[in-house]
Amino acid sequence: MQAVVVYGPGDYRLESKPIPVPGTNELVMRVESVGICASDYKCFTGAPKYWGDDSRPPLVQRGITPGHEFVGVVVEAGPGGLAHHGVQEGQRITAEQIVPRGDDRYIRRGQYWMAEDTTIFGLRVFDGAMAEYMLIPAEARVHRVSSSVKPEHAAFAEPLSCALHGIERADIHFEDTVVVAGCGPIGLGMIVGARAKSPKSVIALDLSEKKLELARLCGADTTFNPRDVDVVQAIRDLTDGYGADVYMEATGHPSAVVQGLELLRKLGTFVEFSVFSAPVTVDWSIIGDDKELDIRGAHLGPYCWPSAIRLIEDAVLPLDRICSHQFPLEKFDEAIAMVGALDSPSVKVSLLFE
Amino acid sequence: MQAVVVYGPGDYRLESKPIPVPGTNELVMRVESVGICASDYKCFTGAPKYWGDDSRPPLVQRGITPGHEFVGVVVEAGPGGLAHHGVQEGQRITAEQIVPRGDDRYIRRGQYWMAEDTTIFGLRVFDGAMAEYMLIPAEARVHRVSSSVKPEHAAFAEPLSCALHGIERADIHFEDTVVVAGCGPIGLGMIVGARAKSPKSVIALDLSEKKLELARLCGADTTFNPRDVDVVQAIRDLTDGYGADVYMEATGHPSAVVQGLELLRKLGTFVEFSVFSAPVTVDWSIIGDDKELDIRGAHLGPYCWPSAIRLIEDAVLPLDRICSHQFPLEKFDEAIAMVGALDSPSVKVSLLFE
Amino acid sequence: MQAVVVYGPGDYRLESKPIPVPGTNELVMRVESVGICASDYKCFTGAPKYWGDDSRPPLVQRGITPGHEFVGVVVEAGPGGLAHHGVQEGQRITAEQIVPRGDDRYIRRGQYWMAEDTTIFGLRVFDGAMAEYMLIPAEARVHRVSSSVKPEHAAFAEPLSCALHGIERADIHFEDTVVVAGCGPIGLGMIVGARAKSPKSVIALDLSEKKLELARLCGADTTFNPRDVDVVQAIRDLTDGYGADVYMEATGHPSAVVQGLELLRKLGTFVEFSVFSAPVTVDWSIIGDDKELDIRGAHLGPYCWPSAIRLIEDAVLPLDRICSHQFPLEKFDEAIAMVGALDSPSVKVSLLFE
Amino acid sequence: MQAVVVYGPGDYRLESKPIPVPGTNELVMRVESVGICASDYKCFTGAPKYWGDDSRPPLVQRGITPGHEFVGVVVEAGPGGLAHHGVQEGQRITAEQIVPRGDDRYIRRGQYWMAEDTTIFGLRVFDGAMAEYMLIPAEARVHRVSSSVKPEHAAFAEPLSCALHGIERADIHFEDTVVVAGCGPIGLGMIVGARAKSPKSVIALDLSEKKLELARLCGADTTFNPRDVDVVQAIRDLTDGYGADVYMEATGHPSAVVQGLELLRKLGTFVEFSVFSAPVTVDWSIIGDDKELDIRGAHLGPYCWPSAIRLIEDAVLPLDRICSHQFPLEKFDEAIAMVGALDSPSVKVSLLFE
Repeated sequence: MQAVVVYGPGDYRLESKPIPVPGTNELVMRVESVGICASDYKCFTGAPKYWGDDSRPPLVQRGITPGHEFVGVVVEAGPGGLAHHGVQEGQRITAEQIVPRGDDRYIRRGQYWMAEDTTIFGLRVFDGAMAEYMLIPAEARVHRVSSSVKPEHAAFAEPLSCALHGIERADIHFEDTVVVAGCGPIGLGMIVGARAKSPKSVIALDLSEKKLELARLCGADTTFNPRDVDVVQAIRDLTDGYGADVYMEATGHPSAVVQGLELLRKLGTFVEFSVFSAPVTVDWSIIGDDKELDIRGAHLGPYCWPSAIRLIEDAVLPLDRICSHQFPLEKFDEAIAMVGALDSPSVKVSLLFE
Repeated sequence: MQAVVVYGPGDYRLESKPIPVPGTNELVMRVESVGICASDYKCFTGAPKYWGDDSRPPLVQRGITPGHEFVGVVVEAGPGGLAHHGVQEGQRITAEQIVPRGDDRYIRRGQYWMAEDTTIFGLRVFDGAMAEYMLIPAEARVHRVSSSVKPEHAAFAEPLSCALHGIERADIHFEDTVVVAGCGPIGLGMIVGARAKSPKSVIALDLSEKKLELARLCGADTTFNPRDVDVVQAIRDLTDGYGADVYMEATGHPSAVVQGLELLRKLGTFVEFSVFSAPVTVDWSIIGDDKELDIRGAHLGPYCWPSAIRLIEDAVLPLDRICSHQFPLEKFDEAIAMVGALDSPSVKVSLLFE
Repeated sequence: MQAVVVYGPGDYRLESKPIPVPGTNELVMRVESVGICASDYKCFTGAPKYWGDDSRPPLVQRGITPGHEFVGVVVEAGPGGLAHHGVQEGQRITAEQIVPRGDDRYIRRGQYWMAEDTTIFGLRVFDGAMAEYMLIPAEARVHRVSSSVKPEHAAFAEPLSCALHGIERADIHFEDTVVVAGCGPIGLGMIVGARAKSPKSVIALDLSEKKLELARLCGADTTFNPRDVDVVQAIRDLTDGYGADVYMEATGHPSAVVQGLELLRKLGTFVEFSVFSAPVTVDWSIIGDDKELDIRGAHLGPYCWPSAIRLIEDAVLPLDRICSHQFPLEKFDEAIAMVGALDSPSVKVSLLFE
Repeated sequence: MQAVVVYGPGDYRLESKPIPVPGTNELVMRVESVGICASDYKCFTGAPKYWGDDSRPPLVQRGITPGHEFVGVVVEAGPGGLAHHGVQEGQRITAEQIVPRGDDRYIRRGQYWMAEDTTIFGLRVFDGAMAEYMLIPAEARVHRVSSSVKPEHAAFAEPLSCALHGIERADIHFEDTVVVAGCGPIGLGMIVGARAKSPKSVIALDLSEKKLELARLCGADTTFNPRDVDVVQAIRDLTDGYGADVYMEATGHPSAVVQGLELLRKLGTFVEFSVFSAPVTVDWSIIGDDKELDIRGAHLGPYCWPSAIRLIEDAVLPLDRICSHQFPLEKFDEAIAMVGALDSPSVKVSLLFE
């Protein structure tokens, strides 16, 4: 089969590899589509988080096949594999990006997404989905997806589950004004998720008018472009001068952190999902002395995958607009480049297999 | 009467002023003692938070008398004042540092310590306790204190209530390892408060051996001096490699924020109380992507004053050691200077009236 | 003006009374519509909760005008009344059923709906809306409602706010199966509210097929009639054998409490809103030893009125179906009787003024 | 070895059985002491919860050896047993009462104490500790206990962990008044646990003066005997008329449920731990309409065993008084009878092995 293989920063190659053979409790899946994440771009371009630096070891393994947001069809099963994962041959499945292994306190307490041994498909140990076939190990968390959905839409379950987990962390009330900063795939998913909690108002922020249009299609009541509007003042004007109740940070830009601390009301809630490529400098006194905020991190999409799949199957999102660009496997490098391009016209870029 | 008056940064003067006259629902208190806070020092030395800068107006008013942690005796009452505050003449009282006024959402919801119009004694509108007598307005939140306690100990109710509120924000469980960074008055109060929740372990951090000794007297099981020990590693060694469950930040130093993000375990809780004089730069990805933390701000001591007073009356703290230095009113400038001195031998510096 | 006056159980009379005159910070409203609550029927028929018994004093005052779910138009204001309530003459308003007075811990902490002095319009102190005009006192919590909505729909804000508060108490997650027992006005509001939180599934229970049809219109995915179906088993079948995550009790029948304890999964949540006319007998061991449940009471609709009004204005509910019967003021007794009739065809019965 | 064997209600026999042989990841423990629980007495006397009735199957298996609160010394290990459980031969251990098996949602989410297949030592599948030796299976949750503690004190870790879990469910704040109803082993443990959270006041209720004396030794500030005092009024008098903030129910008597609903303040918290032998009849409207309470079940002692052991090792409890009666194995029937005797002089009855 054809598979992308990581050789080093900027050096990913399409190669022939044997189709994986499933062992006990394992499956093999024919990949239908794999989405490309901003983190795929960051890894490709050599970000220290993935390749290590003075303070941390590399996260990505040379030789791995990337791709952690995917959907495919079960084509083969090792002994016990179908029963273990509760699936049949021919069914469409996806699997959570993390493959939780080991026996640490997080796994034992059901906090599997925080496992000490962070094994993400396509990063370490388990090959990802930029290949014609993919092994689903015993520890994988498999979910079924209706085959009536387009493959690249189905693969959106990964970013959407992450967005929904962020929303659950936010604890949204009916009377809340919720601001989502950043209208990429995660931010759009957060807008869908926030709207699904029926707050008073969902406000979206982005520098791209096109993304703000998508935000409105996803359920934002109001959109602001920080290029044009003093966002802090505009949100105060909408909230009797108090500021927003909830701020969802999905840009990964340091300036969006500063903006969030400013536009929240006292006793507000700030949910952080992003990976930042640069250090963030803030007036940390705002957190305690000025506003007594709650800042809640969010990582991955635990216990939100079935909901994400349900929203996709119910066509709650404008996925034809969100899944903006599809490439064949052999153009993986073009696809990755498009994710990182400045002012890229893309929202979610996918590889789509025949 | 004699009173300290704020003329400007570095310019506080002891002056004669008329003894205040209580109006409806007001009291006049003869001051017995007033503690000096790090914020008093920061204000005295001109910190922009108090004197304003490009992005914010001044907080302190020229002409005000400073001093917001105090205890005294009721000597006079305006019409209705005794009944309104539930006290008798001759009784010892203290009052919360904030005088909540107005009718904003925070006050209406019982979140009075977050009132939009932040009126703190000694900063704006209401004179503080660096004077022989002090007016207690109708909106003040008055608490009684036993006269069996030394005055400078009784005035410690203010920092201790703040520390206890921070502890309530931390939501400590029996199996938690709690780290308190900074063993000044607030940090020592947090150690007492953490111990009062009976976690598995309370670990104190400070650069001063003398303060670490006090930390042990306040209930710390373990103390580390970051000058001598790799604190992150030491705490991992005590927690099966995971890191601390709870981190209480009470130093106001940016490096202590970085340290806290590092030494917490995944899904841990970081409580922030301090005012920072410098911006804080962190790897903000730790909050979400790496550890999914809860960062909870804490401000003032709402609903914790009676508990703080109870702990003081029950002599739970080594207050003879914590209240390390007392000065008469006329040496207020020496007292303020001692609070800010590098490697100051002091813990809590107070003015003590005859 | 014409007004209903309470003389005793079963003895309410339509009488001429003077139109109220507004004092300082007060308004007078011309009533447009008033909904009739099950509690109005219980009071009319002499329930001890309202008329007292050995263990409690009467709650209702003889001479009062009943009616606590209403909408009307501001026709007159006393000094300061318009500014105090933030309204203009001619605007349509409603007010929360409770008029929180006094200075107890609940009011001071923003928990006004639990005020020790429970003053509900139409029960004590303040006349209700079964009259042509109604006084809105200074302590009332007034909300504006669009005049584009039918009056009897607008008055539904009261039961709907109660339902939404119950939903906020339930803390619904995306993966939850939520069961609502009882599809009267409150239960239907809870179905709307549960659906507004986007759980996996909303299941409605009622003995009336007609109400189950309304439940589906309000957003229930599944409905069961306990006359026909073993509800506990049916819900286990839908939840991998575990039981429901959340149970909303809105029937007031003891058997629905037993049913809820049975059909919840371990660690599930039971929200109780109803007033029961009979004692409830349960196997209380289920709460702790068997299932470690959370049982959360809910009362009134605090902080949910604007949301309820928004849902009504947005026509999210099939209010033409829910507001099933309207009577003129002079037929108040027929209206009250219809609310209590066994197998009544009504859902929400209202008085509708010319 | 000698072991008690369950033949039927009232028919437990001391018999010779072979010493168990440990398999993979298993241990054999020489029993030092086993406490007798009220549930042991209820099972012995034929309670339907254990022996089944029309609505439920039997929980206890004939042929089992009872005893689920125990301590002993590791004397043998099967392959991997020492490493698996993290112990050495000769060390003193205890194990949690539940042996969580299987792969249900509770076990997968770390809620192991709610496992669908409730396997408690001495009830089903795994023999308990009323025997000279006991098998510790691979799924057991083993904890070490210092050998410096008396064996019957060490075995108190089981009821104390249950009490502490109840306390964690109560979410006690510094300003709370906490009432504990019932001063048997669980109630006394709850008093210790409540005191360990440093609330304003801990009030204990019991019909026995001797137990109230023990309650004071465990940390109760105030004790009331409902035989002598109108408890509801007495607690109102201590709480400005509001009622208690938290009520811990540890009696298992229906009247204590009624009492708790009455003596709590509005928005208070009721924690239920007990097993009731009779149905409970209450005015269920109190939960919602009257007081909007939180009622929280508590079962077993999850994540509280190390804390319970720590409190025992630190001699925080008057265990010489609590562990009131010890019997040798052969007098197991006398011991069980003493637990159930009306006005028994005992608190915790134990079997103590040579």
